[in-house]
Amino acid sequence: MLLFVINLVVMSPILIESVAEMQAQSLAWRAQGRRIGFVPTMGYLHEGHLSLVRLLRPRCDVLVASIFVNPIQFGPNEDLARYPRDLRRDMELCGQVPCDVVFHPSAEEIYPENFRTHIEVGELADNLCGPFRPGHFRGVTTVVGILFNLVQPHLAAFGQKDAQQALVLERMVRDLRMPIEVVVGPTLREPDGLAMSSRNVYLQPEEREQATALYHALQLAEKRVTAGERRADKVVAAMTELIAREVTAPVIEYISVVDRQRLHPLEQLRGQFVIALAVRLGKTRLIDNAFF
Amino acid sequence: MLLFVINLVVMSPILIESVAEMQAQSLAWRAQGRRIGFVPTMGYLHEGHLSLVRLLRPRCDVLVASIFVNPIQFGPNEDLARYPRDLRRDMELCGQVPCDVVFHPSAEEIYPENFRTHIEVGELADNLCGPFRPGHFRGVTTVVGILFNLVQPHLAAFGQKDAQQALVLERMVRDLRMPIEVVVGPTLREPDGLAMSSRNVYLQPEEREQATALYHALQLAEKRVTAGERRADKVVAAMTELIAREVTAPVIEYISVVDRQRLHPLEQLRGQFVIALAVRLGKTRLIDNAFF
Repeated sequence: MLLFVINLVVMSPILIESVAEMQAQSLAWRAQGRRIGFVPTMGYLHEGHLSLVRLLRPRCDVLVASIFVNPIQFGPNEDLARYPRDLRRDMELCGQVPCDVVFHPSAEEIYPENFRTHIEVGELADNLCGPFRPGHFRGVTTVVGILFNLVQPHLAAFGQKDAQQALVLERMVRDLRMPIEVVVGPTLREPDGLAMSSRNVYLQPEEREQATALYHALQLAEKRVTAGERRADKVVAAMTELIAREVTAPVIEYISVVDRQRLHPLEQLRGQFVIALAVRLGKTRLIDNAFF
Repeated sequence: MLLFVINLVVMSPILIESVAEMQAQSLAWRAQGRRIGFVPTMGYLHEGHLSLVRLLRPRCDVLVASIFVNPIQFGPNEDLARYPRDLRRDMELCGQVPCDVVFHPSAEEIYPENFRTHIEVGELADNLCGPFRPGHFRGVTTVVGILFNLVQPHLAAFGQKDAQQALVLERMVRDLRMPIEVVVGPTLREPDGLAMSSRNVYLQPEEREQATALYHALQLAEKRVTAGERRADKVVAAMTELIAREVTAPVIEYISVVDRQRLHPLEQLRGQFVIALAVRLGKTRLIDNAFF
């Protein structure tokens, strides 16, 4: 009798939890002339994260994904405690790409007792999500600055779903002259159009159905712009109306049309701009955007 | 007839003024496994700066000194415009150590029009010079962060004369996990005890003579501490009295006794502490300190 054993080899990434070990490893790779790619995440990975890992894979020799639910980017009334976590599943997903290292530091090591330093980007952080999440982008830029020093990447990828975050980080890298290429990957969507997000698991079934309203609103905006509409307020009004129609009691934090360079509100739709929105469905805050 | 030609060879450092060129050079050195030492300065070099360069010389393969009068660390009523500059002389002095590269970027290139990012260290920047120079340390940490990314040093040296600056920068490096060893070199003094500073050239002859009062006050403090004095206010009172006696119309910004870790004011002289002072003589602001 012959036994055929089909061995599906999935490379398991190396798990590094120590900050010192991660930095020593990165500096050793650098000394060997290896090109380092990096995808910083808060874990609970979905296809959006994995698409960023795949985007960098052919462009680097070693690939690191970090999983760190960064406490300082959450406000006091936000979802830090209930943010979804599943390291085992994340490790498996990373192994499928494959990713070489999953870096999973503790908050205690990243922010020791006397921690007092912050990196802050002005202007770009002031609009859109800025006023609704005070301190959020400061927390993001600070942790990404730290992670960059630990992982020493040549390339780092972020998702366009968090468009403001990506623009803030690009500005940080440029202003501080970090020798890192920032790659922004396209938003991945569920079959019905909802932008992928780790926070989508919060949605109750009815909310999940209605959550497609954000995408529908962006599609409507695109239609109007294509049809020649040039007034931002008209587009925003149409999007607001659509969301009010499709969602039971939505809390619209903002629907904004801003320029791509400085994220300042626009009255006329000219040049390169972004339409972005944040809407709360029940306890879940969702964001989405489209680039024009 | 024999002609003896004594050829005093002074290596002239390479002058790099372009930000992109500096970073490309540093990354090339890194790729070659060379150990980079860095002394950031505002130029108009004196023995204090040169002692820092000498301190790093045996510990690195390539040595860079930067000369950059950083506009964002000066307040609106401070001495940015009249800060002394002499690049030719600085180049000669650097050649004598020798230093391999003098990096002399323009303010326009370091801070392009859309520049919006800052690095800030809390707490340590709040006492001593902090309240008298709002935004100063934020300007220092930001520019040093940028210079570190451009020069990619393994080692960087700062002078103890600017003790608060050195402590703030050490904290920045530690918090942000920059893979850089910070070396703090001792304060160098003129024969009469005045701490070396590029700003000493501002002093009028009478002010220059009286400026030794800062050093005398620190010597007096040391004597009192050695004799067993444990009350900070007594030491400060004695120092204040001495300066009032030796200087015509001094403006004492502060004479403070602070702990070494957090720079918080102390009442009792215990453990490791710093006595620091800032005094204005005419238009010139002088600082000095002693570590205990």
